Amino acid sequence: LNIAVLAGDGIGPEVIEQALKVVNAIGKKYNHEINLTHALTGAVAIDATGNPYPDKTHEVCMQADAVLFGAIGHPRFDNDPSAKVRPEQGLLAMRKKLGLYANIRPTLVFPSLLHKSPLRRELIENADFVCIRELTGGIYFGDKGRNETRDKAWDVCEYTKPEVDRIVRLAYEYAMKRRKKVCIVDKANVLETSRLWREVAQGIEKEYPEVETEYLFVDAAAMRIIQWPEGFDVMVTENMFGDILTDEASVISGSMGLMPSASIGLHTSVFEPIHGSYPQAAGKNIANPLGTVLSAAMMFEYAFKLMDEANEIKDIVNKSLAEGVVTVDIADGGKAFSTSEVGDWLA
Amino acid sequence: LNIAVLAGDGIGPEVIEQALKVVNAIGKKYNHEINLTHALTGAVAIDATGNPYPDKTHEVCMQADAVLFGAIGHPRFDNDPSAKVRPEQGLLAMRKKLGLYANIRPTLVFPSLLHKSPLRRELIENADFVCIRELTGGIYFGDKGRNETRDKAWDVCEYTKPEVDRIVRLAYEYAMKRRKKVCIVDKANVLETSRLWREVAQGIEKEYPEVETEYLFVDAAAMRIIQWPEGFDVMVTENMFGDILTDEASVISGSMGLMPSASIGLHTSVFEPIHGSYPQAAGKNIANPLGTVLSAAMMFEYAFKLMDEANEIKDIVNKSLAEGVVTVDIADGGKAFSTSEVGDWLA
Ligand SMILES: CC(C)[C@H](C(=O)O)[C@@H](O)C(=O)O
Ligand SMILES: CC(C)[C@H](C(=O)O)[C@@H](O)C(=O)O
Repeated sequence: LNIAVLAGDGIGPEVIEQALKVVNAIGKKYNHEINLTHALTGAVAIDATGNPYPDKTHEVCMQADAVLFGAIGHPRFDNDPSAKVRPEQGLLAMRKKLGLYANIRPTLVFPSLLHKSPLRRELIENADFVCIRELTGGIYFGDKGRNETRDKAWDVCEYTKPEVDRIVRLAYEYAMKRRKKVCIVDKANVLETSRLWREVAQGIEKEYPEVETEYLFVDAAAMRIIQWPEGFDVMVTENMFGDILTDEASVISGSMGLMPSASIGLHTSVFEPIHGSYPQAAGKNIANPLGTVLSAAMMFEYAFKLMDEANEIKDIVNKSLAEGVVTVDIADGGKAFSTSEVGDWLA
Repeated sequence: LNIAVLAGDGIGPEVIEQALKVVNAIGKKYNHEINLTHALTGAVAIDATGNPYPDKTHEVCMQADAVLFGAIGHPRFDNDPSAKVRPEQGLLAMRKKLGLYANIRPTLVFPSLLHKSPLRRELIENADFVCIRELTGGIYFGDKGRNETRDKAWDVCEYTKPEVDRIVRLAYEYAMKRRKKVCIVDKANVLETSRLWREVAQGIEKEYPEVETEYLFVDAAAMRIIQWPEGFDVMVTENMFGDILTDEASVISGSMGLMPSASIGLHTSVFEPIHGSYPQAAGKNIANPLGTVLSAAMMFEYAFKLMDEANEIKDIVNKSLAEGVVTVDIADGGKAFSTSEVGDWLA
């Protein structure tokens, strides 16, 4: 199993280290040869090479069966969004060059953490849905610019039918293995790109008569995620809407530090926790490694199709929660373990 | 006081009727001559004229000191977002032609309705913020289209400095009368239009040294609205982000049926409840009129600068809540009054 490891910035290296302990333990137990190749990305890559996603890193990713990713972002870039080189550009370049067209984020609820949710318990107890966000198109990658006097700016949102087709199809395939419900989120009452999405979706819908399809405008979806999260099974949407809605959805579980994600690509796939670089905690050995560990579980499931291995990782994470072997963010006044202690225990 | 009345579709006419009872009662008590001119908009206008915002309606609005608006939208258009003529087009035409550049939505919490919020009570008890959404620019009004083979679509998001300037300035003026905090929501790490917003905002920020300014990416804002709504005072953002975030914010109060809004314009201003046409309830005399009544209060405040009248309306609404003279959506097992009974009681 050839894994490219991109630890990145902030708490990235610390949480990745724990996930690798678990990956190696699983490799040993199940007799897999694990080859790890580390490469630079983010602010650390800017410092070393001037480029947040260096060619060398891209090579490493292209040759890997999967990429395990930590986080990128550094506060020194935060107040200057127009800086020439920014860590986020590395992320966008990686998505585009690896063809990571589908970002998959399960919204999982952990019973022992329900009280951490901002939502009332009875609304989320049975929430279990997946957001699938298109990741290489839309307004993120369209033409953008300024007029000569720089007092007018534009960003173009663009989609082609094949781009919509592959991701909507993925959502239906996903739903077939779950509760057979797809919710397509768009703004077809205003946007032409959304009308294209809806046209394509209406075609695919017919190929999956067993799946119940719903179309929801993005503003209504933003409400429904908080009003009735249990109503969703698989949600699929375009890049910008997905950015907003997946982050909104990640909050309702109350367990953001535990949330994994997968970005399915044409060339390889990337697995990363959703929590970001969390610079305030960097270097303190307090960050929660479980999101990264669960991302590794997704890697075994999606990239390697090794379900036993994936399930064993999920089980041990549940056990760590049940036994209270957790970091300070979820220790709730009980004993808080350090990042590395949790990693060692899991491994 | 010349008021254009656009009742629109669904429950629009019923809730507008109650608001007019209150407006007339206030006019009588405070000795204002109230001139009401009714005009068509939405699906009813399509039926009558083929146009959801007929020229005649526009004339009436242009001559009015303020527009009181019900709701538009009809289910027969819902599954066909590409229909040639749609009620929403009337809304967008009205916004553009009246120059309604700023949509203002207070997020109010009513103590007696806190248990209706999907959020835990302790998170929202002291929530009190205002979302200001740019309403006549951005991706709503930019160029949109398809290529010849119709397998590629685009929508252009565009902003000019003057467009950003006037709305950000409005937000600061608003904040000066409140808790002096402005949160500017954008996606400056990805979008050129957002970088323009931030440039303009950073200039205006300097003119208001007393105001505390914060810049938040839209994905982070979508999280913060649920995690810590009490942290906001005045939030300002572009059209599409505002569409999503204002709807998300409207849910957290648990009192959507009571939420008013104002759209400040170059030519006149429009006051409307946020709840929409709610076709399932139309004609049943059960819809909650309080959102429209509170929109009338905003009309007295913003369009007529008549604070006593505005406050008297707000007071009587609070009294109706305290005494349980409310419609079925908030009656909570107690006696439910009809739409018109609530209107009569308030008047
Ligand atoms: C950092 C930023 C460019 C990125 C995005 O908007 O896609 C992030 O918010 C995410 O969701 O991964
Ligand atoms: C109906 C639709 C065009 C409209 C919008 O997106 O602006 C609505 O959602 C709103 O917020 O008033």
